[in-house]
Amino acid sequence: MGRTDYVDDPDAPSANSVVPSVVAVVTDNGGRVLLIHKTDNNLWALPGGGHEIGESIAETVVREVKEETGYDVVVERVTGLYTNPRHVMAYDDGEVRQQFSIAFRAKVIGGEARTSSESKAVRWVDPAELQGLDLHPSMRLRIQHALEDRDTPYIG
Amino acid sequence: MGRTDYVDDPDAPSANSVVPSVVAVVTDNGGRVLLIHKTDNNLWALPGGGHEIGESIAETVVREVKEETGYDVVVERVTGLYTNPRHVMAYDDGEVRQQFSIAFRAKVIGGEARTSSESKAVRWVDPAELQGLDLHPSMRLRIQHALEDRDTPYIG
Repeated sequence: MGRTDYVDDPDAPSANSVVPSVVAVVTDNGGRVLLIHKTDNNLWALPGGGHEIGESIAETVVREVKEETGYDVVVERVTGLYTNPRHVMAYDDGEVRQQFSIAFRAKVIGGEARTSSESKAVRWVDPAELQGLDLHPSMRLRIQHALEDRDTPYIG
Repeated sequence: MGRTDYVDDPDAPSANSVVPSVVAVVTDNGGRVLLIHKTDNNLWALPGGGHEIGESIAETVVREVKEETGYDVVVERVTGLYTNPRHVMAYDDGEVRQQFSIAFRAKVIGGEARTSSESKAVRWVDPAELQGLDLHPSMRLRIQHALEDRDTPYIG
């Protein structure tokens, strides 16, 4: 399903839905960050996705990371809340979702890298190499907040 | 609108909605906690309510505390995520909402106590007196987590 992000754009369509979603910042022993190359918008991104009825938010993280990367993770802590009402995502089916994303640190406890229908590549990326990859600015911000070891989660 | 909470109850109705919501833990200089006496279920509770399209989560906190208590607050930090899928709230209109609540510390910057259609009393309560009030156990837990100054927000 195609997706277009709008941030602070006066021409953005009006939001008609809010779905809590998650992203996971997972690092390996060398400090590299686990990223996927997304099929829906061709950008690199943190693994993550929408919360579903019947699961806790930590279960959402575990499920989405498994689906998109092949790795089994456990959630460690919250690193930020991202709820800018001027960031909306328009989908092909007419849904316009207002951003409501919670970022977590998580660590690998099993599994191995594999791609999926949502991720055409799965890669451990050195933070120094992030500038050379095509990531949405909002995704860069979440990585930055998670890696800078803030005292308390970002609220935005 | 009447509301019934079910926690770990095999007879609970199945959830059909998830609406991100907030509660605010606001204390005065003496460490007393700002509580409301709710009209919908007759319990004492932290002020809070559902996120609405068009607002950030911090704006939800500010709006709900103002509506329910009369006070103007600013958000300080996140203290917990409460997303137990076995805690559902059934409303008179057929909505069965799965718990998805984010708790925050917030502080008063203006306003004064007043009741509302949702709150028949607004009171500053000493933590030692909480046992004597009728609060839902999930509300007690959020107060406890917020007052114990955890290193990192609770995730449950």
